[in-house]
Amino acid sequence: MTDTSVPTPDPAAGEQVRADDRAHVFHSWSAQAQIDPLPIAGAQGSWFWDYDGNRYLDLGSQLVNANAGHGHPAIVDAICEQARILPTIAPSFANDKRGELARLIAERAPGDLNKVFFTNAGAEANEHAIRMARVATGRSTVLAMYRSYHGASGTTIGLTGDPRRWRAEPTGNDVARFFGPYPFRSPWNTDSIEAEGVAALNHLRQVVELQGPATIAAIIIETVIGTNGVIVPPPGYLAGVRALCDEYGIVYIADEVMVGFGRLGEWFGVNAFDVTPDLITFAKGVNSGYVPLGGVVIGSRIADHFADTPYPGGLTYSGHPLACAAGVASIRAFEADGVIDRVRTTGGDLIRPTLEKIADNHPSVGEIRGMGFFWAIELVRDSATREGLVPFNASGAAAAPMTELVGAFKERGVWPFTHFNRIHLAPPLVTSDDDLTHAMGVLDEVLDLADRHVV
Amino acid sequence: MTDTSVPTPDPAAGEQVRADDRAHVFHSWSAQAQIDPLPIAGAQGSWFWDYDGNRYLDLGSQLVNANAGHGHPAIVDAICEQARILPTIAPSFANDKRGELARLIAERAPGDLNKVFFTNAGAEANEHAIRMARVATGRSTVLAMYRSYHGASGTTIGLTGDPRRWRAEPTGNDVARFFGPYPFRSPWNTDSIEAEGVAALNHLRQVVELQGPATIAAIIIETVIGTNGVIVPPPGYLAGVRALCDEYGIVYIADEVMVGFGRLGEWFGVNAFDVTPDLITFAKGVNSGYVPLGGVVIGSRIADHFADTPYPGGLTYSGHPLACAAGVASIRAFEADGVIDRVRTTGGDLIRPTLEKIADNHPSVGEIRGMGFFWAIELVRDSATREGLVPFNASGAAAAPMTELVGAFKERGVWPFTHFNRIHLAPPLVTSDDDLTHAMGVLDEVLDLADRHVV
Repeated sequence: MTDTSVPTPDPAAGEQVRADDRAHVFHSWSAQAQIDPLPIAGAQGSWFWDYDGNRYLDLGSQLVNANAGHGHPAIVDAICEQARILPTIAPSFANDKRGELARLIAERAPGDLNKVFFTNAGAEANEHAIRMARVATGRSTVLAMYRSYHGASGTTIGLTGDPRRWRAEPTGNDVARFFGPYPFRSPWNTDSIEAEGVAALNHLRQVVELQGPATIAAIIIETVIGTNGVIVPPPGYLAGVRALCDEYGIVYIADEVMVGFGRLGEWFGVNAFDVTPDLITFAKGVNSGYVPLGGVVIGSRIADHFADTPYPGGLTYSGHPLACAAGVASIRAFEADGVIDRVRTTGGDLIRPTLEKIADNHPSVGEIRGMGFFWAIELVRDSATREGLVPFNASGAAAAPMTELVGAFKERGVWPFTHFNRIHLAPPLVTSDDDLTHAMGVLDEVLDLADRHVV
Repeated sequence: MTDTSVPTPDPAAGEQVRADDRAHVFHSWSAQAQIDPLPIAGAQGSWFWDYDGNRYLDLGSQLVNANAGHGHPAIVDAICEQARILPTIAPSFANDKRGELARLIAERAPGDLNKVFFTNAGAEANEHAIRMARVATGRSTVLAMYRSYHGASGTTIGLTGDPRRWRAEPTGNDVARFFGPYPFRSPWNTDSIEAEGVAALNHLRQVVELQGPATIAAIIIETVIGTNGVIVPPPGYLAGVRALCDEYGIVYIADEVMVGFGRLGEWFGVNAFDVTPDLITFAKGVNSGYVPLGGVVIGSRIADHFADTPYPGGLTYSGHPLACAAGVASIRAFEADGVIDRVRTTGGDLIRPTLEKIADNHPSVGEIRGMGFFWAIELVRDSATREGLVPFNASGAAAAPMTELVGAFKERGVWPFTHFNRIHLAPPLVTSDDDLTHAMGVLDEVLDLADRHVV
């Protein structure tokens, strides 16, 4: 059911929150004097609300982390219980929740991925995966995609293939970039998804061969590209990457920080594509971010290397009991409630057909794509040329058509996740059919605004 | 009071924890097949215990993070309460606990350090401080000390001046290293603390001038060197660093991941030395690690730069409400209980004189040094040459004299923090006088073993 109840407003409290924030909080990715962050008072399920009595349907699960939605009672109770038992203990000890979560993750990961190194979040997970690959292979270069995001720490922003890297800092971080498959805007002008997969594999093979296979430690790929477009790999592409890595002894790292733990209707995204990477990185959905947690699931090739050779890395909160307890509770709740299966079927049976109908109604929709609870609506000014509704990496006036859409969503009580010329649908995995239908109805309405920009 | 009650043992449960751990948990800084992590069942105050009924006094506050000890009721209650209200919300919003903690930190930080960028832990705090300095100055080189530890992510392991860096990975991370003051093993053969401070400043000036002042973004210094020796800076040293940074427009970053939030008997370590850095990094003690949290306190020079220029960095859990609520509760509890003042006075009135007496009794003690609840006992084989009890970075047989000490501590129910040829005292800041006296009594006993190696 669409929840239309209004929480008790308390604008004065909101003003105090705003005052503290503006005086003392330095925000991510922002010019600090040019922002006015909305104070949030609370959240439940797929909704959150401000201090003025406005409720918003959380279309992006915050930053695609709140897979269980807000205030999930089983996770909240597990946090309370663990806080009273043992919130933290050093990583050199064994701990029940740390071991139990590692086991639950290993049981859900494919193939021989049987060990888990826990970190605080996704950037650190990728940092350590790269370290493991470099130390285990004795090689340095990492291949990463254009149109990728792997985190904002030194190594991971160096991997990242999107504009957030441009200003972040020069790194001497031996990275070479390649293009991934993107059927809607093919780098190779292919005309089918299958042809795009083949062309992308040929391209990657050329990059590997020209960079020098014996110098390449790892290839890192988001199983489904996240922020940079919800781009689903063509059939056979990831299996081809796996084969290429095997041919040259390269470590295949699947970045599943966004897509792990149910987002695609699978515990791990690679399970939908029948491939087994050497390392899978995760964060966000593992416990919905109720407590910061990430990690690397490690296959036997890398695990065996560090059996008798010390792994040169660590962190104070590796395997944090409070964070792990939240993860255990989340996995058990998803299992008990059949969340993963519902995401898969609802993605195919409700979201896809509804979005396809919306696409038919709006000339501004260039393409809809996705799976499970992870979708992109890519907007264009011109359906023939596929020119984006706004230019790549637009801001200010150039981004006005998208800014207008965002405002229209919020006015209608839906908080959208947008990126460049795209609207992403990534709601909590517990979002009801009614709320999904409601959100897509709002999408259908606000796209009229986008249509006015179509030439 | 020394707590001598024994928790109910449950060895079978401990074996299950051990089995999960050995099968599935990949541990920090370890050869995975060569470790046997002790399963920990619970903890309270300054003590923790295993499943076999053994209790241990936590002499290292885990990894110098559990400043409030274990199971602090105010922090546990705050975690429970916040988990029920709003465990997490995206960093682009304002949130009451996020803003309140930023304000409480700014109020306790020196000078114009008035804004806080929150991260998940200390490594990321240093990552972002370096990024801020590089972007704001447009310079690249960072000066870092030998005998330092700044974290294990790519940028921070590159800064680190201890052996953990050696194998961690090649980085193209523009870092130059310098020596800090170390009166007991002076790099300049000085014979007084004052002379060491002068020599160290002269050395640093030469490094700055020869590296090229206009190329140097930042100098990063642990206010008191942590893991690499609890080395307290001589009077005037940090003020001299501040002056040198001012002279050349270099950003002064104080790494207070270990020493912030009371460890030295001050909210921030620099308060004991009357200096105001441009950036202070923190983690651990801010909320005792009950929920992962770190951050950067930002002075006006850097804050002003990013007023109208976007800061190119961020993370999903920046300003995590659950973590911030734990921080607010911890600061308020320390304030209500007078923890900071007690740490300062107890360090000077109880710990120092007791350790000095112990040093007089044991020829293996080369030096004791420290302040507040942060002390090192540096052990030697030869008091004339000051040769360490074990060689620098020793392991295996070469480290046997220290391994023996560690075992003797544990047999006596005290879990020590040791590093190379040193024993560190860094107990929770709530440790009673009786427990401190008890721990130092055990130290006095076990040092007999070290004395046997003295030539």
